[in-house]
Amino acid sequence: MNLVVILVSPRNPLNIGAAARAMQNFGCDALRVVNAYQVAFREAVSAVSAAPLLAAAKEYETVGEALAGCSLVIGTTSIGHRELQHPLYLIDAGAKRIRREMATGQVALLFGSEKFGLSNEDLSHCHWLMRIPTVDQRRSMNLGQAVAVCLYEIVRSTVKPVPTKRIKPADSEEIERITQMLLEASRRSGYLNPVVATSTENKVRRMVRRLRITGSDAAMWLGMLRQILWKLRKLP
Amino acid sequence: MNLVVILVSPRNPLNIGAAARAMQNFGCDALRVVNAYQVAFREAVSAVSAAPLLAAAKEYETVGEALAGCSLVIGTTSIGHRELQHPLYLIDAGAKRIRREMATGQVALLFGSEKFGLSNEDLSHCHWLMRIPTVDQRRSMNLGQAVAVCLYEIVRSTVKPVPTKRIKPADSEEIERITQMLLEASRRSGYLNPVVATSTENKVRRMVRRLRITGSDAAMWLGMLRQILWKLRKLP
Repeated sequence: MNLVVILVSPRNPLNIGAAARAMQNFGCDALRVVNAYQVAFREAVSAVSAAPLLAAAKEYETVGEALAGCSLVIGTTSIGHRELQHPLYLIDAGAKRIRREMATGQVALLFGSEKFGLSNEDLSHCHWLMRIPTVDQRRSMNLGQAVAVCLYEIVRSTVKPVPTKRIKPADSEEIERITQMLLEASRRSGYLNPVVATSTENKVRRMVRRLRITGSDAAMWLGMLRQILWKLRKLP
Repeated sequence: MNLVVILVSPRNPLNIGAAARAMQNFGCDALRVVNAYQVAFREAVSAVSAAPLLAAAKEYETVGEALAGCSLVIGTTSIGHRELQHPLYLIDAGAKRIRREMATGQVALLFGSEKFGLSNEDLSHCHWLMRIPTVDQRRSMNLGQAVAVCLYEIVRSTVKPVPTKRIKPADSEEIERITQMLLEASRRSGYLNPVVATSTENKVRRMVRRLRITGSDAAMWLGMLRQILWKLRKLP
């Protein structure tokens, strides 16, 4: 995949690990780290649950060096106070542009430190910025979660949907048999008042149709009702 | 928001906290926890960074009780080995159905434990299931990240895009002035060979247009080129 995730000045080993795990979930395997707090980075790499791609992560001292080979550079931001000098897209619009670029070139996706985000100098390397549409703009997202949401948005349209089980609805004969059995049970149990029977029958018929019973469930309903009627018919 | 997040048997306080933080990011404030490992839950609630909604989270012993007041119940799954007895949607299709239900009823979104996911009994309370389209289906997602991605997908279409700065492109007069100044600099510096000048001029003209220079950048280009030409004109 023509996508490189670059973590700039990450401080928390759990966040570095979480970012790596999200990358694996979404099939992105190139991780670069700029100016990482060394203790945190070593701890993340050596964690038991560490993603293999963490071991292969490359370290750089500056953002400029970390962008080697990339033709499009995107910064992520929670905006907030900063006055933006860049075009800003929500990630669904941004992801479309990124996928288009990925067809021919390598794209770098920059995430800033947990506390301060990307600096103005980091941002000056970017072609444009994108933002996750959170409800509360003042509150930033957790780093690992931000990586997960961005990668999900970039990758989702390329993942083939799982063929879900096709659920056959019951046909009208089955539904009408269920209706008739329910009506008989209602008559025999005394629920159905013979004086207003027709309008109630129509009510029950509509009610059964609203259930949208499936083909396989219809068999279970018929079995249960058959047994109930068998019992009811024994009563005087 | 008519949406309740239910964590079933969560074990890791960091994951509980991360789920709560993602809920705040996306404006969902009803958290319910079923059969939580008490030490973990207490630790999550008392963490310094704990989201206020964690303190308001309700605890239940069974999934059935935790569903109080909900009209639609959705289970999340990474599928994998289990044979599914439910319709399964990817989260973008699932989110559409959830938003439709949220207009009139409360929706419960169930997340299973970090290790085992939702049990078959948990799933039997669900109307249908949804899955995040990860690339590697065998590997499950981190709980906090899964909550973040699901809520993002449910909420995103309701968050108004930030009005991005409208960037005015440079007009054709500015672009042609830049072209002419570049051509003069090329002639004066000896880059432009007078014999093939016309075809090279056309090349340069096309190249400048491919830059898609913005209105405000055009001023900077013109200033830089004017200064360069002023120096070049001094030379014999």
